[in-house]
Amino acid sequence: MSVGDVSKRILLGRKLRSSQLGETLLPKRIALPVFASDALSSVAYAPDEIFIMLAIAGTSTYVWSWKIGLVVALVMLTVVASYRQTVHAYPSGGGDYEVATVNLGRNAGITVASALIVDYVLTVAVSISSAAQYAAGAIPPLIGHEATVGVVAVAILTAMNLRGVRESGGFFAVPTYLFMVAILGMCAYGLLRLLAGDLPQAESAGLTIQPSPGWEEPLTQVGLMFLLARAFSSGCAALTGVEAISNGVPAFRKPKSRNAATTLLLLALIAITMMMSVIVLAKQMTIRYVDPHELDRLRSAGGGAVPADYDQHPVIAQIAAGVFDHFSPGFYFVITVTGIILVLAANTAFNGFPVLGSILAQDGLAPRSLGSRGDRLAYSNGIVFLAAMSMLLIWVFDAETTKLIQLYIVGVFVSFNLSQLGMIRHWTRHLRTETDPANRRRMMRSRAINTFGLGMTAVVLVIVLLTKFLAGAWITILAMGFFFLLMQAIGRHYARVELELAADEQDKVMPTRVHAIVLASKLHKPTLRALAFARATRPNVLEAIYVSIDSKATTRLMEEWDERHLDIPLKVLHSPYREVVRPVVEYTQEIRRASPRGVVAVYIPEYVVGRWWEQLLHNQTALRLKGRLLFTPGVMVISVPYQLRSSLVAAEREKRDEERVHAGDLRRGRVAAPEPGRQVDDL
Amino acid sequence: MSVGDVSKRILLGRKLRSSQLGETLLPKRIALPVFASDALSSVAYAPDEIFIMLAIAGTSTYVWSWKIGLVVALVMLTVVASYRQTVHAYPSGGGDYEVATVNLGRNAGITVASALIVDYVLTVAVSISSAAQYAAGAIPPLIGHEATVGVVAVAILTAMNLRGVRESGGFFAVPTYLFMVAILGMCAYGLLRLLAGDLPQAESAGLTIQPSPGWEEPLTQVGLMFLLARAFSSGCAALTGVEAISNGVPAFRKPKSRNAATTLLLLALIAITMMMSVIVLAKQMTIRYVDPHELDRLRSAGGGAVPADYDQHPVIAQIAAGVFDHFSPGFYFVITVTGIILVLAANTAFNGFPVLGSILAQDGLAPRSLGSRGDRLAYSNGIVFLAAMSMLLIWVFDAETTKLIQLYIVGVFVSFNLSQLGMIRHWTRHLRTETDPANRRRMMRSRAINTFGLGMTAVVLVIVLLTKFLAGAWITILAMGFFFLLMQAIGRHYARVELELAADEQDKVMPTRVHAIVLASKLHKPTLRALAFARATRPNVLEAIYVSIDSKATTRLMEEWDERHLDIPLKVLHSPYREVVRPVVEYTQEIRRASPRGVVAVYIPEYVVGRWWEQLLHNQTALRLKGRLLFTPGVMVISVPYQLRSSLVAAEREKRDEERVHAGDLRRGRVAAPEPGRQVDDL
Repeated sequence: MSVGDVSKRILLGRKLRSSQLGETLLPKRIALPVFASDALSSVAYAPDEIFIMLAIAGTSTYVWSWKIGLVVALVMLTVVASYRQTVHAYPSGGGDYEVATVNLGRNAGITVASALIVDYVLTVAVSISSAAQYAAGAIPPLIGHEATVGVVAVAILTAMNLRGVRESGGFFAVPTYLFMVAILGMCAYGLLRLLAGDLPQAESAGLTIQPSPGWEEPLTQVGLMFLLARAFSSGCAALTGVEAISNGVPAFRKPKSRNAATTLLLLALIAITMMMSVIVLAKQMTIRYVDPHELDRLRSAGGGAVPADYDQHPVIAQIAAGVFDHFSPGFYFVITVTGIILVLAANTAFNGFPVLGSILAQDGLAPRSLGSRGDRLAYSNGIVFLAAMSMLLIWVFDAETTKLIQLYIVGVFVSFNLSQLGMIRHWTRHLRTETDPANRRRMMRSRAINTFGLGMTAVVLVIVLLTKFLAGAWITILAMGFFFLLMQAIGRHYARVELELAADEQDKVMPTRVHAIVLASKLHKPTLRALAFARATRPNVLEAIYVSIDSKATTRLMEEWDERHLDIPLKVLHSPYREVVRPVVEYTQEIRRASPRGVVAVYIPEYVVGRWWEQLLHNQTALRLKGRLLFTPGVMVISVPYQLRSSLVAAEREKRDEERVHAGDLRRGRVAAPEPGRQVDDL
Repeated sequence: MSVGDVSKRILLGRKLRSSQLGETLLPKRIALPVFASDALSSVAYAPDEIFIMLAIAGTSTYVWSWKIGLVVALVMLTVVASYRQTVHAYPSGGGDYEVATVNLGRNAGITVASALIVDYVLTVAVSISSAAQYAAGAIPPLIGHEATVGVVAVAILTAMNLRGVRESGGFFAVPTYLFMVAILGMCAYGLLRLLAGDLPQAESAGLTIQPSPGWEEPLTQVGLMFLLARAFSSGCAALTGVEAISNGVPAFRKPKSRNAATTLLLLALIAITMMMSVIVLAKQMTIRYVDPHELDRLRSAGGGAVPADYDQHPVIAQIAAGVFDHFSPGFYFVITVTGIILVLAANTAFNGFPVLGSILAQDGLAPRSLGSRGDRLAYSNGIVFLAAMSMLLIWVFDAETTKLIQLYIVGVFVSFNLSQLGMIRHWTRHLRTETDPANRRRMMRSRAINTFGLGMTAVVLVIVLLTKFLAGAWITILAMGFFFLLMQAIGRHYARVELELAADEQDKVMPTRVHAIVLASKLHKPTLRALAFARATRPNVLEAIYVSIDSKATTRLMEEWDERHLDIPLKVLHSPYREVVRPVVEYTQEIRRASPRGVVAVYIPEYVVGRWWEQLLHNQTALRLKGRLLFTPGVMVISVPYQLRSSLVAAEREKRDEERVHAGDLRRGRVAAPEPGRQVDDL
């Protein structure tokens, strides 16, 4: 009786990649801006944080600023060198999470994942807070309302990402390159004026800074070391985002790994150049910069307090104002693109989060529905979660970058460390089997790089923890712990279910008979269709069931039934209390009891409507009945849909929804193919 | 091939009324309190309103108070006489709505339904506001927080009704009879003291009332008439709730109609006695009572203003305080049971609303799911709606009964009028065919009563509209209009759908073949069960479908498949973008295109879990897929459930939910049968 004895397998594929979806791989010049905005944007706040920390002991420590910058640059180069090994060894785009899971086990992977989740939230919070400060610098009425500006900006980003923005390379390339041009151009012009000897002083140059209480001169050796360590760990904010490329290797053109590695190096060189230029220029323009909460430590030249309405502009803004002192469009250009790049950096978190979610879902650490693209609900929930958390942070910390920075970086360096450790294990394992001397040499070299990287990042992590734990990092660690436990619990649940579901031999038993019942509420098209479909499956028993809650309607139905000569018996279940679900469930249980090895097939005619309010008016009982029948063993529930005209509306809507661009598509190598007659703007 | 040629019909019935549910009809002595609390409770505020309205022109008009009371009593007797006809003619419990629909058409029925909906909301708002005032009278710290007290009380009532309170006759009988005892006892004792000549004056007796501006003496004839009309229409608040019995006839013991009619008369006599006693006593105790907003119109005996902290107690409270001047427990007893009866009256709205909803649902004027008992969602939504609307009213009107009364009554009299008109039509129609002289005489008499009733209620409606339209009745009329249009729209929608669904001859065509596809995500028990069930239905084609989003998992599944010798071909659909839903939908569409007269049966293995968070972790994709497939013509979707151990939790919960008592059960004649070993407390 069974059909199809030959196990034929047809591999569909290309065929289904139809319609408007296409795949475009990114050339280096587009990949750089797509993945770099997060890393580059930190130049907008990292130098500021270095100056703020140094200013704790007054201006004398400012001599250390460019040295700290150099150390940060050194760390960045080390980290990038390490990641260049990663993109070669793990070209699948799993990034730190994959490296840690494969080499160090599941718990290390979960730790990295927790760190990444927390970091995505902080990327949004820090970038948007910084952007709000730039906005307030350019538009004075916004001063004092930075938190509101930030929350509104996050809300707009959220709406855009929920809606699905058609991202293209150009979307990222234009502002990112403009930002590079703006910062590097400004610095080059500034350095030129420095050489020419007419570099103006910064607007804050005339001020002096009073040391914080307890940090007055002369500093002890230990005190100075601690101060420099704090400044350094704040400066390490410049490193956030460099790992993005290691998650995006599959989106690169071939040779993927090499291109990704080259882009990484390029990114590092640009980021370092920008950061160092900004620090050097700031130093040369004798900038004075303190924690925005302690503006009263600023003293005017005469030693008096600065005016109460003194507004401290970000470092880049002060440099731009000085360098372009006779050319205000230059100033506004720098400020504007800086603001834009910061928003773009926040947007990368909205793109990266769903990608991370899908990887975690595949490994059973997050709801599986996150794993398939386009689960609107899961996907939207992720975006809304990210937005809500970052809004909360912006609101609680009043959009003060300096405070949020204290929470940042811990997560980044946790994943850096685990990733490096994983890479060392990776090379050691491969060295065990590799015999080719050239390969072995390469691997040894890679391992050396990763070992150096681990040493470096471990030291940084310790410094960060020591200097920032009480200042806010404990919040991050708490949050990471929470996500760690949550993912572990989800993982355990899935494992338990899998065990319970594992097939054994017994499961091959076929049901002996099929007893089909069709639920009839009226004798209309949906019922007739369900009867026809049910009959087409040739069950052993076929009957229609009607739950009677009104004797007049029952009589009418029975008459119609007879008139139609339907040849299918109609069974009436009386329900004196107007219950519909219970009598049907009890009836199926009864059938099942009578033949325990048979199966009851319950056919439910459903009409499919298109509008949400129509949903409220129809099928509610069918829905509830299906829900209850699922709990009844030996029952299968068959929905026989009848599409009403209005269902076309919904079918169209569903289709549009599915074809819509989703945040993160671009970095998964999935971009919208150009519409006919439209320019390809990203190739 | 089809099974079962003989159309056998088995009528199940009693058998399903199993478990804890039973049916108990109400004897008159229990039915009275069940249905009377709403009507009787108005004695707690109706006399107050009469005095407030009369006080507009100062105390001189107080001489009219008992005459107005008499007119209200007359109207009540007329209305009750009319309803006695209704309960005989329409014993099915449809009440005014049924009378209007049957005799005056659908739109009249919808109008009555709108009026009832609005009235349910106002019953809650008015009763709870009045109760809050009594509470403040007995517990001084609550003074000034009446609105908060009211909102909290509604919230508690809502929670209780959502949870499902096990109502019994005793639940109503005890407080209602206590209330009668309290009020009638107090009045009897008061009248006794009056005869004995030692009736004390009320606490407000020493005060005088300044007329409102424009109402100073001497009043014009027209002015007086208008004032009396206003007082009368406010007093008509006493009539709200008398129609409740006409909705509850089926819950009475046989002879249902006669018992209901007797109970109605009893109710009217008790209500009138209570109201008249209160008015007369209040008059004798020279009560002074003004709008609580205009306490500054009260003047102390010397002509000066009353103290700023003067608190005006409700009429019953003032009488109780006076009558029981040497026996304060008597005072607290009266106040307490009055408060309780008011809360009980509000609760009747929570009970009546779902009953009305189910009747409207049956007639296609409300979502059909309201029609079957125990649709938790629809039912809860109804209760929450009622609560939200009444809370809003209490909050907006600051729990001031006097203001809320202006909105009340309009709806009641709209349905009174339409109901009377309907009854006249009813008798006229029946008289056309009736030949038996005795019957004809009875019908003529009934028609005369209803005609008199219509005349009376029409006059009252006009008076109410004239005197209250601007004072708030416009809100009621607006709300009624809204519900009218909403119900009409729902009715039209259902009619349109019914037309589209009407069966024609073409619909008997049987599908030529069944192409079954089983969705396999893994080779575990649910999949094996789905395969077995699918095979049991012997389709023309049977194949398994796997959506491949990861080549390693695909290879593993294919190997397992071969190992198991499943004899069913496995088709792999490649989905490079991790979409699951779309490839399946497109594949079914393809099959359907290939054989347009066949049907595609999609088997979806589902595992059934028990806890809400497990739901989030499972079946989300299956759910979405089912949703999408419903829009695909020629497809039936078969859920093959596999019950995990944890599903027992949910099955138990569902069962408990279903067996739970629902608000309104008692008045539908459905009450919980006594548990073993428990006293039957309502027989």
